[in-house]
Amino acid sequence: MAKQQSQRPSRVIIDRVLPEIDRGRFAAKRYDDEQIKITAHILVDGHDMVKGRVLLRHSSEQTPHILQLKDQGNDKWSTEFHLKKLGRYYFTVQAAVDRFGTWRADMQKKIDAQQNVSVDLLIGERLVKSWFAFVNDSEKEFLKKFYSTLKSWSKTSFLTVGDFNAWAQTPELERIAYEQFDKASFIQYDHEVPLQVEPAQARFSTWYEFFPRSTVTGPARHGTFKDAEARLDDIKKMGFDVVYLPPIHPVGKAFRKGKNNTLNAQADDVGSPWAIGGEEGGHKSIFSQYGTMEDFHSLVKKANSMELQVAMDIAYQCSPDHPYVKEHPEWFKQRPDGSIQYAENPPKKYQDIYPFDFESTAWREMWEELRSVVDFWIAQGVRIFRVDNPHTKAFHFWEWMIAEVKENNPDVIFLSEAFTRPKIMAYLAKIGFSQSYTYFTWRNTKWELTQYMNRLTQTELADYFVPNFWPNTPDILPLSLQEQNETMFKQRLVLAATLSSNYGIYGPAFELMVSTPRQPGAEEYLNSEKYEIYQWNLNAPNITPYITKVNQIRKQEKALQSNRNFRFHPIDNEFLLAYSKSDGGDRIVVIVNLDAKNKQSGWVELPLIDWSIPEASNFVVHDLLTDIHYSWKGWRNYIELRPGAPAHIFKIKTISKVTDYDYGYVE
Amino acid sequence: MAKQQSQRPSRVIIDRVLPEIDRGRFAAKRYDDEQIKITAHILVDGHDMVKGRVLLRHSSEQTPHILQLKDQGNDKWSTEFHLKKLGRYYFTVQAAVDRFGTWRADMQKKIDAQQNVSVDLLIGERLVKSWFAFVNDSEKEFLKKFYSTLKSWSKTSFLTVGDFNAWAQTPELERIAYEQFDKASFIQYDHEVPLQVEPAQARFSTWYEFFPRSTVTGPARHGTFKDAEARLDDIKKMGFDVVYLPPIHPVGKAFRKGKNNTLNAQADDVGSPWAIGGEEGGHKSIFSQYGTMEDFHSLVKKANSMELQVAMDIAYQCSPDHPYVKEHPEWFKQRPDGSIQYAENPPKKYQDIYPFDFESTAWREMWEELRSVVDFWIAQGVRIFRVDNPHTKAFHFWEWMIAEVKENNPDVIFLSEAFTRPKIMAYLAKIGFSQSYTYFTWRNTKWELTQYMNRLTQTELADYFVPNFWPNTPDILPLSLQEQNETMFKQRLVLAATLSSNYGIYGPAFELMVSTPRQPGAEEYLNSEKYEIYQWNLNAPNITPYITKVNQIRKQEKALQSNRNFRFHPIDNEFLLAYSKSDGGDRIVVIVNLDAKNKQSGWVELPLIDWSIPEASNFVVHDLLTDIHYSWKGWRNYIELRPGAPAHIFKIKTISKVTDYDYGYVE
Repeated sequence: MAKQQSQRPSRVIIDRVLPEIDRGRFAAKRYDDEQIKITAHILVDGHDMVKGRVLLRHSSEQTPHILQLKDQGNDKWSTEFHLKKLGRYYFTVQAAVDRFGTWRADMQKKIDAQQNVSVDLLIGERLVKSWFAFVNDSEKEFLKKFYSTLKSWSKTSFLTVGDFNAWAQTPELERIAYEQFDKASFIQYDHEVPLQVEPAQARFSTWYEFFPRSTVTGPARHGTFKDAEARLDDIKKMGFDVVYLPPIHPVGKAFRKGKNNTLNAQADDVGSPWAIGGEEGGHKSIFSQYGTMEDFHSLVKKANSMELQVAMDIAYQCSPDHPYVKEHPEWFKQRPDGSIQYAENPPKKYQDIYPFDFESTAWREMWEELRSVVDFWIAQGVRIFRVDNPHTKAFHFWEWMIAEVKENNPDVIFLSEAFTRPKIMAYLAKIGFSQSYTYFTWRNTKWELTQYMNRLTQTELADYFVPNFWPNTPDILPLSLQEQNETMFKQRLVLAATLSSNYGIYGPAFELMVSTPRQPGAEEYLNSEKYEIYQWNLNAPNITPYITKVNQIRKQEKALQSNRNFRFHPIDNEFLLAYSKSDGGDRIVVIVNLDAKNKQSGWVELPLIDWSIPEASNFVVHDLLTDIHYSWKGWRNYIELRPGAPAHIFKIKTISKVTDYDYGYVE
Repeated sequence: MAKQQSQRPSRVIIDRVLPEIDRGRFAAKRYDDEQIKITAHILVDGHDMVKGRVLLRHSSEQTPHILQLKDQGNDKWSTEFHLKKLGRYYFTVQAAVDRFGTWRADMQKKIDAQQNVSVDLLIGERLVKSWFAFVNDSEKEFLKKFYSTLKSWSKTSFLTVGDFNAWAQTPELERIAYEQFDKASFIQYDHEVPLQVEPAQARFSTWYEFFPRSTVTGPARHGTFKDAEARLDDIKKMGFDVVYLPPIHPVGKAFRKGKNNTLNAQADDVGSPWAIGGEEGGHKSIFSQYGTMEDFHSLVKKANSMELQVAMDIAYQCSPDHPYVKEHPEWFKQRPDGSIQYAENPPKKYQDIYPFDFESTAWREMWEELRSVVDFWIAQGVRIFRVDNPHTKAFHFWEWMIAEVKENNPDVIFLSEAFTRPKIMAYLAKIGFSQSYTYFTWRNTKWELTQYMNRLTQTELADYFVPNFWPNTPDILPLSLQEQNETMFKQRLVLAATLSSNYGIYGPAFELMVSTPRQPGAEEYLNSEKYEIYQWNLNAPNITPYITKVNQIRKQEKALQSNRNFRFHPIDNEFLLAYSKSDGGDRIVVIVNLDAKNKQSGWVELPLIDWSIPEASNFVVHDLLTDIHYSWKGWRNYIELRPGAPAHIFKIKTISKVTDYDYGYVE
């Protein structure tokens, strides 16, 4: 119950500060070298004017930046700041009645209405006098002149708004008035709001996942980091900037899984890389068949020299052969019969995997050790971690671990591989994961894609859940890709790459259009690369040129490098999806035919007025995929897409001169 | 930055607790004798089950009610509670891993899959044993039997799910397991959430505003409370339940306003009742021309006997003649020339009004005195206050004052008369006002009404901003009512009365269809009753029967007594508005013709599936305004409305038997 406070409460109210998540409990995400907009509602009773400012500081800074809030009308105030440091910022909002501004505005209106302002001049004198104690000598000099001017005006019967403003609107007075700001009545929002500035690559990234052990083109053997290095050129040429490697650690032998996830592994079966740990070591070791730590450094160095980042897989789980099991049995759940609890989801058993017990009494040491795994690989040059199944480990662990790591290494990116229920996926993003896997993999129809994208971009999720769209993964061959239909692969690629600024594919399975499921209806690959070594024939039919083109476009067009200005547009065909992304005045409009087997046509409606294009005018759209220019007129235009070419990626070009229009298009 | 905590953090997370406003800073509003639904997201990593409960207590209670949360799927949990006390409740949420439930579910799946469960039985034994210390003797007896049964099962090689459930699903075990609930790992939401239970009339009320001084029907004189009493019968017959009186206090003489708000009042001008205070007293006094305090008591008593509440006007402002001005000059702003600051909104001056200075150094005494005004009238039997211009007084004052008053008198209702910017209106509702004036008065078109109603009912405003719709007030004769078009008056009435569960009219101007503005374009009455005494001719042409009918329908139909289940329905005509309100299975569908001068027709689409009516079935709609029954078929039906009858208020009736259908309708 609100009790009467001992001090007179201010008349000013600060409400609805943004970006803020759960009243400051979690940090909204923004990006390096980006402009952030902070808004707040500032209210006061009556007709007084208010002033407000934001105090923003990076966690490494003692003194906050002071950002003056600007009135956006309707009691909403905002300011912008160019974020130049990675990591954690904190901000709060201050506000006060603007006594000088109120007095000045009232004076202007009264003088204008030719009212007697003698008392108002006295009020001004009092106000100016009250500042004397706070200003330096030259300011005081200035204020004294203004003060005597006010006095002289009180003796004249003829004062114009011009005379008044010549003094009252000088920048010098503005500045002093702003700073003198009535310090006593100043209030502050009741808490600091955290803000996480992520590296730009957390917002815009293009991932390529591949198994380094399957990179041998000659006679069959286990691939090495050297073999993997040889693939980087191709991957770079396709336009990717992250190469993501499944775990590279020793693989356990106990209960090793055979081909196609069978229980009876043969002697020559290599096992799943996710069954981590064996004689050779655990999460900080490299499986000797890949080579040495030096080979890994060489791979990272080569990649970085090509502007490729190497993403590591972090799977916090152990094979029964992992050194942790012997060294720290207390980190695992002991069963009453003395055995260690293997992973299970009854009646399914995963006897090749021991999960960590996040309720262990030795949790503190265990958490530190798990964190040290990340630190270890950061020391080897890794900056991106794809985290395996984070939803099966304690949420508080992730919140702590990510915050700890980012305190020293704010440029590190964690991708949450949680394919689970929506509230859990969202919560993992809230507590710090930079990017998240999504349901895109199973969203195929117009209704599904529309609902899902609107949820990701038009709700509070937009402030913390950063999607990374994958049309396939080693675990998932979705039904949509189970026919070797080239158009369908292109369609899913263009959707992933243009709906979401972060996307990835698991290759070479994707570009080679591998489409055979383990069994009909199963959404898994037959002969999954997870359990065996592949010899890929990269010269088989592929959509590599299409991927390359799409990635080129993403790199050229800043609009595609963020999801902030995403919106759908009406198009009168259930199989056609139309949407746009904008960056300032640059606009990319994408039209996708969701029917991979038939021609579809329709009329797309574009919000020309919002885009400052006259409703009835001609303009040109440039299809960046085909380099064809189309001349369009007005807000409704015809679209036709045939199998083989499932999408247009249009850049909107407006006509600047009549002569341009005469030629039908402009470049 | 999240630091590692000294205690092992729980694996359970409580998120998104509702109803909650600004993370518990403000109280959501609910109503007496209503079911409240509390929901929360409860998350845990992995496949463990969770349990949760709500601890809810009225501020007068020491021990909370414990409400078990039920799993609604998708990590959302909910519980319901029947609110039986007015005033402030607080609740919080607790949750834990459900170790017994997880073990039981795993056992069931493993037995079903004929797996060896010997170790799982040992785990069960441990769990049961851990409860021994917490249970009473008879419970212990029961647990020991279960324990030996578990032991015996471990010796048998054949255990069925049936055998297991015969023990594991007994209510006794359920209850003990629920209570034993792993007290140690139990976590609690990080704060208590406040909830305000308002009187039912705050949700459903029908207001009639009139000037008691204008209630004389014979020779002209100042009306008295006795005259006003005589009007109550008519008002009651029309179906109103609140009579709202403009201020009844002595009216100031200094700078008194004349007829039509002129500055040069004549000797016989009575002034505005809102210029409060004179020789006879101030906010706690009655203007002698109304009669005595006993007469006021008699009016309140008579009204209450007819189930009418008397609503008082609270206008915290003083005429220069108010006793406060002499007794407490420190409560007003002193100007440098020694005069007191009158109200102004430059260049407009309101010299007949002195506002209180909420920044007075004597604010504490002033706040107490202002609160005592409300307490005074509560002691005289008043329970409803219509607060004049709350947005020109300090927000913190209202928050404190309303909380103080409601602590002792939770049945009191405050209506905020703030016709100002949206964020300020919303904030006043957040800090405690029970009801609020709205923009309805100026919302006329389909687009305007749709946008506005969706904002009021489909956003967070629904939890705290409770609209009270007024088609007119003494201050406002909107443009829509400036023709004496009976259909328009009926249309605005039916909109106010069926869109919002709270509405009111200023009479007799409304029912007599007074429509002449002070000057063309002005939204004010000519010869406003605010500045002069009227002799109303209640026998002039009027829409009293229509108002009576609409109010009868509101009283009969619970669906119209709340805005909780409001929704719009598509209808293919820009002049037709279709919407419904539901109460359980009772559904009222309203169709309004917004064109008062022309016939309009269209096809309305109803969500029959949501209403459990088969898509293609026949059903009957009963127009409660005309008592006519229409037979409708399917989800799309034809509507036609002509001038004179601007609306249908349909009650949906479904066909229960074929024979009913044969007759074309059922009653």
